Amino acid sequence: MTVKTDAAGNLRGLWKPPDAETKRLILGSHIDSVPNAGAYDGVLGVALALEWVDLAREVKLPLAIEVIAFSEEEGVRFGVPFIGSRAVAGRMDPALLLLKDAGGVTLGDAIRDFRLDPSRLDDAALDADVLGFVEMHIEQGPVLESEGLSVAAVEAIVGQSRLTLEFTGRANHAGTTPMRLRHDALAGAAEWISSVESMARKADGLIATAGRIDVQPNAANVIAGVARVSLDVRHADDLTRKTAVESLLAEARAIAGKRGLALERTQQMDQPAVPMDERLTAFLVEAMAASGLKEKRMISGAGHDAMVVASRVPAAMLFLRSPGGISHHPDETVREEDVEAALHVGGKFLERVVTAVG
Amino acid sequence: MTVKTDAAGNLRGLWKPPDAETKRLILGSHIDSVPNAGAYDGVLGVALALEWVDLAREVKLPLAIEVIAFSEEEGVRFGVPFIGSRAVAGRMDPALLLLKDAGGVTLGDAIRDFRLDPSRLDDAALDADVLGFVEMHIEQGPVLESEGLSVAAVEAIVGQSRLTLEFTGRANHAGTTPMRLRHDALAGAAEWISSVESMARKADGLIATAGRIDVQPNAANVIAGVARVSLDVRHADDLTRKTAVESLLAEARAIAGKRGLALERTQQMDQPAVPMDERLTAFLVEAMAASGLKEKRMISGAGHDAMVVASRVPAAMLFLRSPGGISHHPDETVREEDVEAALHVGGKFLERVVTAVG
Repeated sequence: MTVKTDAAGNLRGLWKPPDAETKRLILGSHIDSVPNAGAYDGVLGVALALEWVDLAREVKLPLAIEVIAFSEEEGVRFGVPFIGSRAVAGRMDPALLLLKDAGGVTLGDAIRDFRLDPSRLDDAALDADVLGFVEMHIEQGPVLESEGLSVAAVEAIVGQSRLTLEFTGRANHAGTTPMRLRHDALAGAAEWISSVESMARKADGLIATAGRIDVQPNAANVIAGVARVSLDVRHADDLTRKTAVESLLAEARAIAGKRGLALERTQQMDQPAVPMDERLTAFLVEAMAASGLKEKRMISGAGHDAMVVASRVPAAMLFLRSPGGISHHPDETVREEDVEAALHVGGKFLERVVTAVG
Repeated sequence: MTVKTDAAGNLRGLWKPPDAETKRLILGSHIDSVPNAGAYDGVLGVALALEWVDLAREVKLPLAIEVIAFSEEEGVRFGVPFIGSRAVAGRMDPALLLLKDAGGVTLGDAIRDFRLDPSRLDDAALDADVLGFVEMHIEQGPVLESEGLSVAAVEAIVGQSRLTLEFTGRANHAGTTPMRLRHDALAGAAEWISSVESMARKADGLIATAGRIDVQPNAANVIAGVARVSLDVRHADDLTRKTAVESLLAEARAIAGKRGLALERTQQMDQPAVPMDERLTAFLVEAMAASGLKEKRMISGAGHDAMVVASRVPAAMLFLRSPGGISHHPDETVREEDVEAALHVGGKFLERVVTAVG
């Protein structure tokens, strides 16, 4: 393979068979992770992509394959994720070059320190000669394990709303204030957190999480005056997600109203869902059947490079089972049989690409 | 008055009329408070006690009156409250002398630095020649204000249970973990906090507070793995309080069970209720009626020196309305008309003591 590093720090290897068509297939995932991470998040997808190149040779794929090991997917250093895939998708906002890391180094300087030229980021963008992009990644969740399956094709990456709700009541002595004279912010927040959970349980595919709560003064003998709660809502259908958020806000207003609490909300995120390419996804599902595996489609609840790349070229994803649903942790792992399944699917997938191109 | 400071730092003034009986009446409250406090917590009771000595002269009380300005009621410096009243009640555990303040100074050394002798703490205890103790104090709560009343006699000081419940589930990705595969510690804690409130609302005089919650990892995009919640339960009847705590623990176990959470609990406090002396309390209530005030009895939800002194001699308390229910805050205040009411009640109370003694 011909290997280079683009201006965003993506490591890119090009394999080109003799007499190849003009179009390329792009494979890959990211090679960064988080502090105290596991060994498979991202990098397994890159290793599998290299194996698929061998499979491409076997099936005599008449296309070049470019394997991309994306940089900075997690956003650990500069606080913004998908730096590498943004550049590949031609969506790199130059303002991001001014982001600073904890040591005060800008993203632009970090790229220069790596002997790359940030003024050439546009060159990293994929051109029109791309058939599509396939990313393989561990699921980072418990769904495949709970169903006893090795792999799944990702149909869509969920849209995500993130908000903070602040309930304000009156901090008061927990001994001298009778129940009927209280305006307890934590009791109000608790009632609402239960609503968040029960609404999400009722709607198919909806996930809603209150993961963070900050209470003031947060003392055992003082009625809470303020409770700030995070809300994270995800669904593959944007209307379903937005309706759920509106309904949870109405519920919060009703709870605050009846308890004499003030309610403030701020929205941190409103990110639309990203569907994967139907044709490539169908190839993956057919390849599962052809490999003797169950035809499993699922929704990804987390973001991936494929979500960003999809804005530029047709994109698809294959998930591999995550034992224990564990990720971003040293215990993160993958089963050998599931890696084998991903290779079987790869061979069958590439056979379908050969047919489609030929 | 003859004034001295006892070995616990209590400032004590003795007024003795000519031909007084042997028995003394004790009046007073504390003169310490908390950082950033108001001007009335404790010290108003001491000022009123001095005024009652003038009233005692007017009604020709045939008893001596000792006014005690208690030291260290709040427990700010050494973390343990009621140091002064413990000594007066003869309940000063010598082990407390080893308590250290934030600067490493022991309570014993602090007493010596004040030119007092900690080996003489027993001398501070009240002897048998005491008719009783009356403490006046601001209510530090909203009850009298909500009923439009100036003063109330305290029938009992509530017993108090304080516990911490820890719900442990599994921290997981808020995007990739479907609702049905979650063990969300915060959702479990929220359900239980609602139970705490609804149980307390149903039972007369019961107050139960979850004022503190600590969640791990407490991040918007991670399902909570651990939620630790404080429980503070108070009631004037110990059986009612203990039954409520048992019932809330059973509820917590049920919630943890159905959600697959582990539950741990630790108990920090199990302090019995302290009834005030019936005869002295009746004198206070009769004195209200004789002053044209409503005969109001109430329960104190907070601890006071009278609670400690009651273990040694008959004790009673008179609460004065707290505007806004505010205490331990610079806005803490008291109405002049309520101070006047407390003086009227004092005169009528002392008349009853004269009759009872005479």
